[in-house]
Amino acid sequence: MTIFETTINSITDLDKEAMEKAKQRQDNLIKPLGSLGKLEDITIRLAGIYGEYLFDTSKKAIIAFAADHGVYEEGVAPHPQEITRIQIPNFVKGITGVGALARFAGADIYGVDVGIKYDKELEGVTNRKIRQGTSNMAKGPAMSREEAIKSIEIGIEETSKLIDAGYKVIGIGEMGIANTTPTSAIISVMGSYEPIEVTGIGAGLNSEGVIKKAKVIENAINLNKPDINDPIDVLSKVGGFEIGAMVGAILCCASRRIPVVLDGFISYSSAILAIKLNPQSKEYMIPSHFSAEPASNKAFSLLGLEPMLQMDMRLGEGSGAALCFNIIEAANFAYNNMSTFEEAGFSV
Amino acid sequence: MTIFETTINSITDLDKEAMEKAKQRQDNLIKPLGSLGKLEDITIRLAGIYGEYLFDTSKKAIIAFAADHGVYEEGVAPHPQEITRIQIPNFVKGITGVGALARFAGADIYGVDVGIKYDKELEGVTNRKIRQGTSNMAKGPAMSREEAIKSIEIGIEETSKLIDAGYKVIGIGEMGIANTTPTSAIISVMGSYEPIEVTGIGAGLNSEGVIKKAKVIENAINLNKPDINDPIDVLSKVGGFEIGAMVGAILCCASRRIPVVLDGFISYSSAILAIKLNPQSKEYMIPSHFSAEPASNKAFSLLGLEPMLQMDMRLGEGSGAALCFNIIEAANFAYNNMSTFEEAGFSV
Repeated sequence: MTIFETTINSITDLDKEAMEKAKQRQDNLIKPLGSLGKLEDITIRLAGIYGEYLFDTSKKAIIAFAADHGVYEEGVAPHPQEITRIQIPNFVKGITGVGALARFAGADIYGVDVGIKYDKELEGVTNRKIRQGTSNMAKGPAMSREEAIKSIEIGIEETSKLIDAGYKVIGIGEMGIANTTPTSAIISVMGSYEPIEVTGIGAGLNSEGVIKKAKVIENAINLNKPDINDPIDVLSKVGGFEIGAMVGAILCCASRRIPVVLDGFISYSSAILAIKLNPQSKEYMIPSHFSAEPASNKAFSLLGLEPMLQMDMRLGEGSGAALCFNIIEAANFAYNNMSTFEEAGFSV
Repeated sequence: MTIFETTINSITDLDKEAMEKAKQRQDNLIKPLGSLGKLEDITIRLAGIYGEYLFDTSKKAIIAFAADHGVYEEGVAPHPQEITRIQIPNFVKGITGVGALARFAGADIYGVDVGIKYDKELEGVTNRKIRQGTSNMAKGPAMSREEAIKSIEIGIEETSKLIDAGYKVIGIGEMGIANTTPTSAIISVMGSYEPIEVTGIGAGLNSEGVIKKAKVIENAINLNKPDINDPIDVLSKVGGFEIGAMVGAILCCASRRIPVVLDGFISYSSAILAIKLNPQSKEYMIPSHFSAEPASNKAFSLLGLEPMLQMDMRLGEGSGAALCFNIIEAANFAYNNMSTFEEAGFSV
C-alpha cells in the first residue's frame, strides 16, 4: 500500500472510554453541568483523540504549506504572485500574522514549499516542491491525479515528522496568492453551490473582481468536470498543491491520533476533501475561526463543525489556528486546575 | 456631586489621533488591509482608550461582585442559594471556572460581596455588603433607589482601587444564584421584549422551570412598572446588587480610560444600563463571548456590539472575560511584533 492508502486506512474511532472518564471529570468540577460549553467539549474530544483522560497540550506547531496557482494569470487576485515566496520565509521568522500569533501561543512554525513559482531555496522553508505552481484550471486540470496524491503524501510525511518530534497539537496553514479561487471551486463542487454563492473578495478584490473570479471558477468547473464523488479528482482538477498538502496533514494527524486545528477558508476546503476521503478524520479536527469569506457558513455546514472564534479574519497563513491554540490550552488548564465538588468540600 | 455623578460626567470620547496612528501602523503590517479583523479593531480601540498608540495590556484583573436575590424564593433557580457564598471565595482561590481561566491568562481576581445572604466575612472577599440579598421583586422593588445608586458606587470605588493599583485591562464577573432572573427582567424592560422571549435555563432549569421563571419576571414587571427611560429605576425595581456594581465597574473604567471586558449574560444587562446612563461608556467595552442563554442575540443587538467567542458557555463568574484576555494580548502582540512592509523589505 502507498503512504496515502496506509494513512487513510489507519484512521480509527476516538477512544470512548477515555472520553467517558473526561466527561465524568468535567461533570465533577465545581460548575453547573456543561456550563463551560465548548471548553468542556474540547477536553472530552482530546481525551478521545489521545486515548488518555489527562494529557499535555503544550507542545504545539503550525505547519504551513505554500504553493502558487496557474489560475493567477486569469486576474483573480489583487496582489503580485511573488508574495507567496516572499511571505513564507517571513512566517518562519515569526514576523507575519501567523508568525507573531504562533510566537504568542508558544508554538513553533514550519514552512513547506510544495509548489512555489520560484527556482531558489527559501530560507528556513522545507523544499518539497512538486512543480512551480499548478496549471491554470481555466485551461485544463490544475494538476495530474498523481500530483494530487503526491501533494497529500507530502502533507502526510511532513506532518508525521512533527508528530515524531513530539508535537501534541498541530495547526495547519497555507500561503498561495490566488488560493481562494481553487478553494471556492472545491466548495462549489463538493457542496453543489453556484460559484458566485461561494466566491468572496479573497485578499481584497472589488465587487467587479469577485464577479470575474466566480466566472473563472464556473468556467473551470464546466471545462474540467470534477467528480463530486472522487475527492482526488476534485483536488487535481480545481485544487492546489498546498490544499492537497493540508488534506495530507489532516489525514496524518487523524491516523496518528493528534488533534489538527483548522485555520480559515482555504483549510475548510482541505477538511471537506479529507472528510470525503475518510469521514472519521472529522473527529480529529478542531475548527478555530469563522473566516470573513462569505462562503464560510456553507463550508461549515458541509463540514458539520462549529468554530469558536468570530474574528472577521481573512488572512489565512494559519493565523486563526494559532489564535485558537490558547483556547485549547485554556480549556485544558481549567479542566486540570478547577476543583471537584469533593475537593472543594461542597456539602449542599 | 456624588461619586456616581462625577463618574458619569467624566466619560469622554476616545482619542481619535491615537486611533489614527494605530490604524496607520496596522495598515503598514505585512498582511492584506484589515485581514486580521477584530484583532486589528481591538488594538485601534485600545489606542483610543489609552490615548497612546502603543500600550501594555499585560496587567489584567477580573473583578467579580457577588450578591443574593430575594426572587430566589419564587423557585427560579435549580441550585441552593448558599452556592453564592460558597463559590465567591473559590473564585479568589483560583479553583472555579473564572479562577482557573484568570490564572491561565496571568490575571488577578478580586471578589467583592455587595449583598450575599450570609452574616460572616468570606475569606479573600472584600466586604461591601449593602444588605443580605435584594427583596423579592415578585412582591415589590428589589431594592430602593438609594441602594441601586449605592451598588453602582461600590462598583466604581472597588474598580477604581484596581486602576490605582496599575491594572490596564479589567474584566467584570459576578456570582449570585438566581441572577439570570433579574438579568432577563432588565433585558425585557430595556428592549421591550416579552419576558418569555428573553428567559433561559440559567444554571439548568427544565422547560417547565423556564416558563415559570418567565411568568415570575412578567409579574414582577407588571407589579413594579420599571421606567425604561430611567435605568436606576429599572435596576432598583428588577435588578440586583451585583448587576449594579458591574454597571459601576463599567462606568469607572470608561471614566478612567481603561478597557472593560464584558463577560456573559448577566454582564450584558449591566452594559445595557451603563450605555443608557452614558452612551459613551460603550466605547470602552470589549465584548468577549456570546452566552448560551437564548436572549444573548437580543442583548447584543441592544448593545450594538459583536462578541469574539462562540463557546456555548453559560457559567458567568467572569469566565468569558478571562478567556478573552488572551485574545486581547494576542492582538497586541501581533500589532507590536509583526513587521511593517518597510521593515520586511517589501519591494513588490
